[in-house]
Amino acid sequence: MPLSYQHDALIAIRYPIGFYILAVIQADLLRRVAHEVLRRAGVRDEHRQQQIDLLMEADLRGVSSHGLLRLERIVQRISNGVSDPHAKGSHVWRAPGFLAVDGERGLGPVVANHALEALKPRARENGVALAAITNSNHIGMLGWYAERMAQEGYTLIALSTSEALVHPWGGRMAMLGTNPIAIGIPTGDAPFMMDTATSVVSMGEIHDHANRGQPIPSGWAVDRAGNPTTDANAAKQGAIGPFGQAKGYALGLAFELIVSSLSGAAIGREVRGTLDDTSICNKGDVFIVIDGPRRDLQAYLEEIRKLPPAEGYDAVLIPGERGRACREKRLNEGVPVADEVWNRLQALACIEATA
Amino acid sequence: MPLSYQHDALIAIRYPIGFYILAVIQADLLRRVAHEVLRRAGVRDEHRQQQIDLLMEADLRGVSSHGLLRLERIVQRISNGVSDPHAKGSHVWRAPGFLAVDGERGLGPVVANHALEALKPRARENGVALAAITNSNHIGMLGWYAERMAQEGYTLIALSTSEALVHPWGGRMAMLGTNPIAIGIPTGDAPFMMDTATSVVSMGEIHDHANRGQPIPSGWAVDRAGNPTTDANAAKQGAIGPFGQAKGYALGLAFELIVSSLSGAAIGREVRGTLDDTSICNKGDVFIVIDGPRRDLQAYLEEIRKLPPAEGYDAVLIPGERGRACREKRLNEGVPVADEVWNRLQALACIEATA
Repeated sequence: MPLSYQHDALIAIRYPIGFYILAVIQADLLRRVAHEVLRRAGVRDEHRQQQIDLLMEADLRGVSSHGLLRLERIVQRISNGVSDPHAKGSHVWRAPGFLAVDGERGLGPVVANHALEALKPRARENGVALAAITNSNHIGMLGWYAERMAQEGYTLIALSTSEALVHPWGGRMAMLGTNPIAIGIPTGDAPFMMDTATSVVSMGEIHDHANRGQPIPSGWAVDRAGNPTTDANAAKQGAIGPFGQAKGYALGLAFELIVSSLSGAAIGREVRGTLDDTSICNKGDVFIVIDGPRRDLQAYLEEIRKLPPAEGYDAVLIPGERGRACREKRLNEGVPVADEVWNRLQALACIEATA
Repeated sequence: MPLSYQHDALIAIRYPIGFYILAVIQADLLRRVAHEVLRRAGVRDEHRQQQIDLLMEADLRGVSSHGLLRLERIVQRISNGVSDPHAKGSHVWRAPGFLAVDGERGLGPVVANHALEALKPRARENGVALAAITNSNHIGMLGWYAERMAQEGYTLIALSTSEALVHPWGGRMAMLGTNPIAIGIPTGDAPFMMDTATSVVSMGEIHDHANRGQPIPSGWAVDRAGNPTTDANAAKQGAIGPFGQAKGYALGLAFELIVSSLSGAAIGREVRGTLDDTSICNKGDVFIVIDGPRRDLQAYLEEIRKLPPAEGYDAVLIPGERGRACREKRLNEGVPVADEVWNRLQALACIEATA
């Protein structure tokens, strides 16, 4: 099915931001183009759906570093044979509540969702169940999994490792992944979901500053020699700081150790395959699924929302809700995407670029 | 068995720090006096051992806010009937891997250890098992549990809530506990253990600054009206900031929700009984126990230890190891305790004060 569309009707705005030109694309169009890209890469319907949903949700919620920007790499990895779009991962139950997953080089969200589906009945039976995954590709924005599991009545703690990009507190060199954690909790109404890297920022944000020619705030990163820097280009060659100094370092390190020890995944500087096109991805993921909560948490969350905000803040926010509001807006008004990304997506979908 | 000792031989040094006078007490003497205090409060051998071990380990590792400083409150709570030194908590298995614990007002470490013992065989059978505890007293330094479980070959994730002392990021008022997390992981050698509150500091440190007449660093706390303050006395009436700004807030809130939803414990400003002598303690604790790791993590940790330290740092540290070094030193050289605390302990043990 060839894809065609009317440019003017669908691209609402294109405007420059620093060195970028930003295109605002209707969500449906963006999704269709992305599907076409993966269809041409030989990814079958069901798996395509999961991969595109994950990336689209990131763009919709304002986390463009985890959005369709990543699609070209995914295609390249399939084409280079380090990612198998047909694999769902093979499952071995080491114990009734402990699922060991060999991801068989599958797409991150496909392997992850397949594991989560297997965990649900076990969490119901045992109260809690976990999966330790390796040999799977980048699983993207962890909050996507946390929110969906919470919607279905499960508490999820999700951990994932990545290439070493973060320096230990007091150190000069990257030795830890950005090691995010997401937690989803059913609350009786909209599920609670938080999702954060244990680095002070993402490497994507540092690249973004470099692209815009802007300095980075002090405390974000060190340069190649391990000295603090506000030069974004120097930081690209260096390492990002852990969030919250020694405390965030301790958490990020604990997550690296848990994921590696439970899944057998690579650790520290051995980790490969989430930032390149040619290495087999050897990071790991851990999901802990707990059967539901006992308690309605809405009154408490509502109490927090209603707090008077501090000087300089408009409101006290609940994690995840700003992303949800952004999602609503972008579904209605279109999704801002770097023009370069949009052009590449169209090229990969074999559509004439709108530039 | 009355307790007697030779003062001069056992108190190595007493010296003033700000408004404090610090006594350095031999660890064995401190332990014996503390045991005598709890013996007189009617706490039987086995339970006394656990409570004193927990407090002593905090003092030995340099976490005096969670050390014997707290013993008088524990005695008062027993005497006021809000803490039952004989209770171990009653257990209901909601599922093979989900233990619901009614702490029956027992001593925190007694109820916690009893739950952990029950979790071990279930974690071995199921791969993972969890306990959700409420109606139990303060469980103290979470790292104590994490390190011991890791020594025995289990990965432990420990969460606990507390009175609301921490403001949401962007808010003016305390709505969250200091909600610590500890993680213990077997590594093949000394176990890995990290333990941190999700607040930027403890309320104990703010009281400490107030007692010394020192200002607190900006960013630690807000005053009663919710405005940032560096006045430690104003901060005592206000709220502590979350560590790592919005990220630490998201984590602290997620932990508050997980603990409350799984255990049925009180939440937010409803929480009572860890800072007073008269309220039944209604906070909650959650332990997730995972059966062992697959991987030897020593080489990686060693690689981190050997990193060149950043400007201004002597070494790159692994969480928990500074505390362990402090422990060794204090076992040999004595434990610094505020003179006032030492005098109160002796009074409670009905020993003539050394002042």
